[in-house]
Amino acid sequence: MDRRRQKDLGKCNRLSPATIPHPMARINENYRKLQAGYLFPEIGRRVRAFAEANPQAKVIRLGIGDVTLPLAPAIVEALRSASAEMGTDAGFHGYGPENGYDFLLEAIREHDYRSRGVEIAADEIFVSDGSKQDSGNIQEIFATDTTIAVTDPVYPVYVDTNVMAGRTGPADAKGRYAGITYLPANEENGFVPGPPSGAVDLVYLCSPNNPTGAVATRADLEAWVTWARAHRAVLIFDAAYDAFISDPALPRSIYEIEGATECAIEMRSFSKRAGFTGVRCAYTVIPKALVGATASGERVAFRDLWSRRHATKFNSVPYVIQRAAEAVFSPEGRKQTAEQVAYYMTNAGVLRSGLAAAGFACFGGEHAPYVWVRTPQGLSSWDCFDKLLGEAHVVCTPGSGFGSAGEGYFRISAFNSLENVEEALARIRRAFAG
Amino acid sequence: MDRRRQKDLGKCNRLSPATIPHPMARINENYRKLQAGYLFPEIGRRVRAFAEANPQAKVIRLGIGDVTLPLAPAIVEALRSASAEMGTDAGFHGYGPENGYDFLLEAIREHDYRSRGVEIAADEIFVSDGSKQDSGNIQEIFATDTTIAVTDPVYPVYVDTNVMAGRTGPADAKGRYAGITYLPANEENGFVPGPPSGAVDLVYLCSPNNPTGAVATRADLEAWVTWARAHRAVLIFDAAYDAFISDPALPRSIYEIEGATECAIEMRSFSKRAGFTGVRCAYTVIPKALVGATASGERVAFRDLWSRRHATKFNSVPYVIQRAAEAVFSPEGRKQTAEQVAYYMTNAGVLRSGLAAAGFACFGGEHAPYVWVRTPQGLSSWDCFDKLLGEAHVVCTPGSGFGSAGEGYFRISAFNSLENVEEALARIRRAFAG
Repeated sequence: MDRRRQKDLGKCNRLSPATIPHPMARINENYRKLQAGYLFPEIGRRVRAFAEANPQAKVIRLGIGDVTLPLAPAIVEALRSASAEMGTDAGFHGYGPENGYDFLLEAIREHDYRSRGVEIAADEIFVSDGSKQDSGNIQEIFATDTTIAVTDPVYPVYVDTNVMAGRTGPADAKGRYAGITYLPANEENGFVPGPPSGAVDLVYLCSPNNPTGAVATRADLEAWVTWARAHRAVLIFDAAYDAFISDPALPRSIYEIEGATECAIEMRSFSKRAGFTGVRCAYTVIPKALVGATASGERVAFRDLWSRRHATKFNSVPYVIQRAAEAVFSPEGRKQTAEQVAYYMTNAGVLRSGLAAAGFACFGGEHAPYVWVRTPQGLSSWDCFDKLLGEAHVVCTPGSGFGSAGEGYFRISAFNSLENVEEALARIRRAFAG
Repeated sequence: MDRRRQKDLGKCNRLSPATIPHPMARINENYRKLQAGYLFPEIGRRVRAFAEANPQAKVIRLGIGDVTLPLAPAIVEALRSASAEMGTDAGFHGYGPENGYDFLLEAIREHDYRSRGVEIAADEIFVSDGSKQDSGNIQEIFATDTTIAVTDPVYPVYVDTNVMAGRTGPADAKGRYAGITYLPANEENGFVPGPPSGAVDLVYLCSPNNPTGAVATRADLEAWVTWARAHRAVLIFDAAYDAFISDPALPRSIYEIEGATECAIEMRSFSKRAGFTGVRCAYTVIPKALVGATASGERVAFRDLWSRRHATKFNSVPYVIQRAAEAVFSPEGRKQTAEQVAYYMTNAGVLRSGLAAAGFACFGGEHAPYVWVRTPQGLSSWDCFDKLLGEAHVVCTPGSGFGSAGEGYFRISAFNSLENVEEALARIRRAFAG
């Protein structure tokens, strides 16, 4: 047994608290600027409270955007087979390669990029446990005084993680943080805002869009890439919903746009396209051509910073999960997951046409699993949420939860059974009848 | 199809790059302070280069500390069963509860805490995908000007993540960052340094220790808790190797020490105790009693900040993986994983006694799967690494990779087969004979 001297220790113990001027360890006060709870936990709290008070109510959840169909057979088989492998000497896998196994990187290169005419190197792809994590962590490799723009409404993670990092001032009465440029997505611009007129370093884009369900055309993305290159800005392109694009002419990757490898980081996920919300796999692409500057003007590839972050703060995705993700690209996996996507898109069509027929103004839902609906009767988003929950027992997501420009809208998700979607539709129509 | 105005967009496109004074997006320059590559990728590069130049050499890897035994049958069965469940309507699980499923939280409370007389609430436990991630991310909830102390040598993640966050100045010639307090762990103090004499806000402790294999006694931890409470400092207690403690009188959790819930955050992992390095599951405990201060002196529970971070930047561990972790606590799982731990500890004993018999000065290896060895012949750590690789075809970890106080030592890991450990031992003895 190792023995040791307690010399230093004894010296410290002689100090009594009263003689020590050291203040208490301090918190990151940027967290105090954050508005209320993170949106989805807040919805969860309201739904739980309602369900406890109304145990007989059959609540239909079209809120959080969680998939509902079971994992496709090809994916289950891959998971089970990899699990068995892990129990053998020959098939056991410990720590994996930092950026993902080659088998998955190659499948991504082939099916998500080469099939669309885009060549991405294996070492430009970083497999992760989710686009939420990636889109939350990506800001770390930028300078603290980086200026940010987001579309509004927006997936809250983009904003909240920059608030936590100290890139903003406090929020105003509408929940808008000082220092962030908000680009309103509204009916006038078809919910696809163009670039800002002022200078910004970093812009978060999401297409097909969460929450509005709008999709950027090739012309939209070309305008963004042109602007970003001219302004030497960086675009974070979140394509978590690309599988729901039904028009083959629409771009699925921003790298289908000339010059995008010099200005864009792209994030893709298996969550929605293959039912991986409880399986956890995604990836981020950072081309080597994308460079930032130091204060002294030296050029540094963002890819190298992200690689360092990945190696230091992450430890790769479970082997069995990477095998499951690989199975998404197998012939059976592609067929089975395409059927799931088609199922949800049928639901989206039913929701959109049904709500439109009932007099609601509806947007999105054509290339995305979300329909974005103007609240009727001038209701606020949260009042409409409460009415839908309380009277129709349907959970939606209040538009204002995604930003002040979302006020007066709610998001309704196609992720449920067709039966539940039809039942929800009937209840919503009854709740708002007369 | 939604249509939109291109008015703003057109306006931007009229600006040519030459008329725009906006500088390029800037990088987080703190990353530039980091020394060389992260340790383990650097080892990986050297080993790959050697293996390519010497394809016939049978390299034995006792470096990175990765487990080698296949997953225990109870864990494989849980993974396979949960995978099958995910393919059914009734058993599919999408997004999980942010902090982990109740079945796993309860198993942790019962087996890791109540069994040692410690009561931890379920909402003080945060299940994650690894202690590397948790120990890297935890610094985010502290103020940027928080002062840090680490033992030296140290797991590089504690230091590097604080460098990335801007809490340090540049490194000196020995790789020590300005602003960090280093507490040397050396032969004099049995590799368990006591608290610093000066004031520090946040201290990272690891016991059983990576890399030295030393273990803190109850008296050691009592001294730390007394010091932390007196100085209103916070201890990060990394107990990733607790399963290797062979003396039941030694504390496994810092919460076995009176008052620790007011000053300590604890991290535990399934990686080493159950072979989860490629499975990915761990957890962090932050008691509600642990508070920090705002600049104005208001008290805030660190647990609430971490909860917010978890909800915003994380999306829980895969359902199948949480079921696998639960199986670690089943009667069969406990028996099978205890056998694996015993197997590795037999190896550690063989390494320690074999190296000692060959004249090496050895430490650790009694309550940890690592033996910490003084380099012979006055070799530097990296020279010794290169000699072991080049002449014995054995991969160790150079002590200096863990900090300047590790210079003149190397870490050798018990994570391999007994046959390989014995073979490595024979080769090392030959390489250093005469």
